[in-house]
Order: sequence, then C-alpha cells, then structure tokens
Amino acid sequence: MAYPGAASMRAEIVSIGTEILLGEILDTNAQYIASRLPALGIDLYWMTQVGDNLDRLSEAIRRAWERSDLILATGGLGPTEDDLTREAIAAVLNEPLSVDGELEAQLRAFFASRGLVMPERNVKQATLIPSARPIANPRGTAPGWWVEREGRILVAMPGPPVEMERMWEKEVAPRLAKLMTGGVIVSRTLKTMGIGEGSVDEMAGPLLRSTNPSLAVYAKADGVHLRITAKAASHEEAQRLIAPMEEEARGILGKTIWGADDETLEAAVGSMLRERGLSVATMESCTGGLLASTITDVAGSSSYFKGGFVAYTAGMKIALGVNEELVRQHGVVSQEVARDMARAARERLGADFGIGITGVAGPDPPPGGKPVGTVHIALDDGRVPQAISYTFAQSRAAIKRRAVTTALAVLRRALLARSSGDRAKGKERSNA
Amino acid sequence: MAYPGAASMRAEIVSIGTEILLGEILDTNAQYIASRLPALGIDLYWMTQVGDNLDRLSEAIRRAWERSDLILATGGLGPTEDDLTREAIAAVLNEPLSVDGELEAQLRAFFASRGLVMPERNVKQATLIPSARPIANPRGTAPGWWVEREGRILVAMPGPPVEMERMWEKEVAPRLAKLMTGGVIVSRTLKTMGIGEGSVDEMAGPLLRSTNPSLAVYAKADGVHLRITAKAASHEEAQRLIAPMEEEARGILGKTIWGADDETLEAAVGSMLRERGLSVATMESCTGGLLASTITDVAGSSSYFKGGFVAYTAGMKIALGVNEELVRQHGVVSQEVARDMARAARERLGADFGIGITGVAGPDPPPGGKPVGTVHIALDDGRVPQAISYTFAQSRAAIKRRAVTTALAVLRRALLARSSGDRAKGKERSNA
Repeated sequence: MAYPGAASMRAEIVSIGTEILLGEILDTNAQYIASRLPALGIDLYWMTQVGDNLDRLSEAIRRAWERSDLILATGGLGPTEDDLTREAIAAVLNEPLSVDGELEAQLRAFFASRGLVMPERNVKQATLIPSARPIANPRGTAPGWWVEREGRILVAMPGPPVEMERMWEKEVAPRLAKLMTGGVIVSRTLKTMGIGEGSVDEMAGPLLRSTNPSLAVYAKADGVHLRITAKAASHEEAQRLIAPMEEEARGILGKTIWGADDETLEAAVGSMLRERGLSVATMESCTGGLLASTITDVAGSSSYFKGGFVAYTAGMKIALGVNEELVRQHGVVSQEVARDMARAARERLGADFGIGITGVAGPDPPPGGKPVGTVHIALDDGRVPQAISYTFAQSRAAIKRRAVTTALAVLRRALLARSSGDRAKGKERSNA
Repeated sequence: MAYPGAASMRAEIVSIGTEILLGEILDTNAQYIASRLPALGIDLYWMTQVGDNLDRLSEAIRRAWERSDLILATGGLGPTEDDLTREAIAAVLNEPLSVDGELEAQLRAFFASRGLVMPERNVKQATLIPSARPIANPRGTAPGWWVEREGRILVAMPGPPVEMERMWEKEVAPRLAKLMTGGVIVSRTLKTMGIGEGSVDEMAGPLLRSTNPSLAVYAKADGVHLRITAKAASHEEAQRLIAPMEEEARGILGKTIWGADDETLEAAVGSMLRERGLSVATMESCTGGLLASTITDVAGSSSYFKGGFVAYTAGMKIALGVNEELVRQHGVVSQEVARDMARAARERLGADFGIGITGVAGPDPPPGGKPVGTVHIALDDGRVPQAISYTFAQSRAAIKRRAVTTALAVLRRALLARSSGDRAKGKERSNA
C-alpha cells in the first residue's frame, strides 16, 4: 500500500484531449500540477497526453495504474460523447458506471441557479463507479473523481484550468498532503541582475557542491537565478536547511540579488520607489507603451508612477519638450535624444526619475536609419543623465521586452546608488 | 513497413528533461511539433514527457517503438551526464554507440570558429549507432539523430526550441513530407467579433453537418473562431475543399469576421487604418499603456499611430486637456471622462480617432470609488463621441487585456461604419 502515511509516492499525470494532440492548446494543466508536487514530497515520473479516444485513453490509464501510485488526470469530464475519462477508468478498473442520485440533484440545482434547465446529456456528469468519490467543482458542471483501490489513487479533474486549479488547491492538494508522511522538497529562488551565469557559478562555487540543500544556477530573461532546494521531513525543517545557504548566497552576491521566488523586477523596483517616496515617469518610442504597462502591472503603482508618453513621432517628442536641435543633429534614435526624452518626461510630469527609450523595433529598418534592434535607454534624475545603448538581435516583440527589462534594471541601479540622505530629500520632494 | 510512400503514420512525441517533470518549464516543443503534423498527414496518438533517468527514458522509447511508426523525441542531447537520449535509444535498439570521426571534426570546428577549445565531454555529442544518421544543427553543438529500422523512424532533436525549430523546419519536416504519400489535413480559421458562440453555431448550422471539410466553433479571448478542416490527397486539393465553405461562412457571418488564421486583431485594425489613410491616438489610465503597446506590436504601425498618453493621475489628464469640471462632477472613472480623454488625445495628437480608457484594474478598489473591473472605453472621431462600459470580473492582468481587446473591437466597428465617401475625406485630412 502506498497510503495512508506513505513515505513516498510515484506519480503520473495523464492529460486528456484531442486539442492537445493537434497542437491547438498547450498543456498548462500538467505544468501546473507538476510544479506543485515537489512541495508535497511526491515524485513525478511520467506525463502523458492522449486524445479523446476510448482505446488509447484506456491504455494510458491502464499503463499508469500498473506503474504509478498516484495518477492525476485532467480533461474528458464534459457532457459530450467525446468526453470519455469516466468510461475509460470504469473499463480499466472493470467497475460499472451508474448515476449517483445526490450528484444528479446537485447538477440540476447548478443549472437551475442560473435559470437554466439541465440538458439531459449532462446526466453523464453525475455518474460514478463504486471506488470513486466525487470532488466538488463549484466553477463548473463536472465533479472530479477520487478513486482509491489496490493501494493506488487516481484523481480525475476537469480540463478547464480555472476549474482544475480550484479543485487542486482546495480539494486535491490538501488531501494528498494529509496522506504523505514522507519528506517534502522546498525550493527558494534568488534572482540576480547585472552578472553573468559563469560569474555566479564561480562566486557560488563552494555552495554548488552541497547536496542538501542543493544549489542550481539558471540564466533567465530577467537575469541569473539561483535555486536552493532542500529535502526534509517537514516544510519547516526544509526551510531551516535553506536559510543558512540563502544567507551565504546573499552575502556573496550582495545587491545583485533583486528579488526572490515569484517576485517580478517591476514589483521589486516598485517597492524600492515606494519605500523611498520617489516617483518615475516615462517617454517611450520603440517600446510603444510596454514600459508604462509593465510598471503599472504592479498593484499600487499609482503611488509612484506619474504617467507616461508614447511618443511615436519626432513631432510628438518635440511637442513634449525634447530639444528639436538634438533631434536634427543626432536623429531620433540616439543616446542624446533618449536622455532628453527622460528629462522631458521627468520635468513635465514632476517625477523624481524620467526614463526615455528610443530605438528600432523592426522588422524593417527605417529609411537611412539605424539597424533593427538598436535601443537607447536613458535615465534622468535631475542631476547627471545617463544612457546606455544595446543592440538586441531578436524579434520585434522580444526587442520590446528586453528593452523594458533593461530599463527597469537601470532604474534599480540608480535607486541602489541613492544614499540614505538622498532618500529623505526625495521624500520631501515627492510630498511637496 | 510504414515507409517509404506511407499512406498513414502513427506518431508519438517523447519530450525528455527533468525540468519538465518539475514543472519548471512548459513543454512548448511538443505543441510546436504537434501543430505541424496534421498538414503532413501524420496522426499523433501519444505525447509523453519523461525525466533524465536512463531506465524510465528507455521504457518510454521502448513503448513508443512498439506502438508507433514515427517517434519524435526532443531533449537529452547535451554534453552532460544527465543527457541520456543517445544512450537510451542505443539500449532499446541494442546497438553499440561509437564516436563518428566526421561529426567529431565538425564539432571541434564549431568550437574553434568561436575561438574556443572543445571540452572533452562534448565528444559524446559526436556519437552514433549504426542505424542513426546525423541531422545538422547549425544553432548548437548537438546534432540530431535520424534512425530507421524495422519499418519505423525515430528522430531525436535537441531540446532548446531555437535549435529544435530550425532542425524541424529545415531538415525533419521536408524529409517526412517526402515519405508521406497519404492525405494531408489543412485548416483555415476565421475569427469573428461581436457575436456569441451560440449564435455562430446557429447561423452556421447547416455547415456544421459537413464532414469533409468539417467546421468547428470555438470561443476564444478575441472572439468566436470558426475552424474549417479538410482532409485530401494534396495541400491544393484540401484548399479546394475549404474554399467554398469559407465563402459560404463569410456570406453568413459577413463583417463579424475580422481576420483569419494567425492574424491578430491589432494587425487587422491596423490594416484598415492604413488602407483608409486614417490615424489613431490614445489616452489610457487603467490599462497603463497596454493599448498603445498592443497597437505598436504591429510592424509599420508608425504610419497610423500618432502616439499615446498614459495618464495615470487626474492631474495629468487635466494637464492634457481633459475638462476639469467633468472630472469633478463624474469622477475620473466615468464614461464622461473616458469620452473627454478620447477627444483630448485625438485633438492634441492630430489623429482621426482618439481612444480613451479609464477604469479600476484592482486588486483593491480606490477609496470611495467604483468596483474593481469597472472599465469605460470611449472613441472620438470628431463627430459623435461614443463610450461603452464593462465590468470585467478578473485579475488585474486579465482586466487590462480584456479592455484592450474591447477597445480595438470598438475602433474596428467605427472603421466599418465609415462610408467610402468618408474614406477619401479621411485620407485628405491625414495627408494634410
């Protein structure tokens, strides 16, 4: 028996739906579940996607039942003839399917509460086999199934992510957590900026040899991440293993670490602005508003974001106060104009910092202009304006994203450079 | 033998990598390949993800070898000890692995061309088994494998999408296309806006009964999609089956159809603006620049996008010309202010259309303010300003996205309503 009180569980995810095999949708459900199993101490060995075909679906479930302790299935619980998950499980376990009176009543009530009469084909969603217990699904019409037999557990969840995620969080994960007495795996991710993967590897050298907790280094779009992973009997114990390594890593990498776990760069920069009572304004050309949109993705950003201009033409830049002479002399795609855009945004919107971005997002270069991917990013704080230039050899969308990430990194560096004396001054100014 | 000249092929995708099973990365490679098989006439029956473990990886490949004619594997071709795809294939087919002199020379030349000496462990990437032929990978150090034996084909490709996609497009797909003599499946997607899934279903009723081509209806974030799918001996014949149904569907659904296949709403609206010689400007509050960023995601948008304001404060709105009295009377989150934002954007930037968006993106409602998700979207064309209001009960990010899609739909409707007489006038104005 793998449960109750299992010290370990071999799990398998089975995702059901022909749309997945046609490449029409990405199987995000499988990743969602996979990412949540380590913290429960459950080892995932297999993931399978299969279409709405009774034979192949039954084969997938039979195979999973043979080799795994825990099967987590999603999809195929709808009311149509193509929804065959219940039928396949019944076939593999050789148990009869029958309508459960209580479930049927609940289902009819669900439709009635929306002023609808239940279509008769939906009765199918009220069926069970003897080994199955229903799992509540307040977000849809398909209850899940919790099947226990022969020391194995099979959980069938609906395919729509909004239904599946609620069922996982509120019903399935808590029950699994109760069953598991074995170890858990807990991870902590530290996010750095402005330092290469090789350098992080070198600096963190001695830590990389540790096995529990272990340390891994990944290069990501928003900088290099360090992932500390500990295996322990409890969440608390794992945290105790992680803490000293995190402290050591922070000691080594210092201010290159800008955040942890799910934190985004825009949220980290936002917190720094708020804490220091400072504000920012933007003037964007090639990023077309993506910087302002990213800054305002953070709840509460209105307390430090003064506003932005998407100045897509030279005329609009000049109307907003960019020096016409600089535009004529250096062209709109230049460090000089980026700096003046930053200044104009700051002054016009009364912010502490102004950011200016100008460049060529492509895919076609402007007539007689700079090459695609050229981006100038400038920051103005009323003292020394600074600007950096990049060439991002990527797609239009990627050039925009990279420029925004870089602009946020530039702002972060400027915030770090401010002394505490400046902070008080900044606070006064912003409250004036 | 399933080849050469196979009329049909049962395919299976095997994705290899522990990061997938830990939920750290989404298996986008599998979706990429899956979405390209129907056009080759290849049926995909299985998708499996497995970690960097020799036993389980071998089991996955053995199982695929038993039940499929074509196995498409990605990942596990790197130089480290964790990269075990070559070893697993060799074990399953019981063939010896040995270093190929020519491959080794190529690999050393690859490193030398970058001024590097090849680490000795990379020699592993130059190994083959007797049944395997290498597949060129100019984007990385891991050549692919093309294995043919016992009427089966196994293709092993590298895991990094940028390497895999090139190998698929330039090497693997062309070879598979040559082998296949059976039918192909071709799809055409028509995208509608402003009409519900049920209504489309009803209007397209008679078409839904057709089997080849077949028609399916899907509700998506940017409206209801119709997917026409035909199976035929050749691409051209499939197109000939699709054409009359597309014509009929266009006759029934008329101007609710805004685009086809991979076209985006912002590209469709952009084409309409360009064709009519008209321009647009924006003033955004709760969407924080996402509308401007979305409009400028389209290459060439500078010909019709006059610029945008991200007016995150009442003060900035008023400074840009929004009537202070309206703000005082109705509050910044109101239809009246949205309309005046649209007008101010249009006038200030000399555009034909102005769009104004104001609302509450949340997650916390403003003090004494409107509920989270309230969004007012207005369009001003210098004649009758129009505004619509929504409550989107979703996350901050989803509220922003929904508001942007709706704003683009509103602009599209206004463009459709313009008579051809207006078009000429618009052209003059914009060229003035």
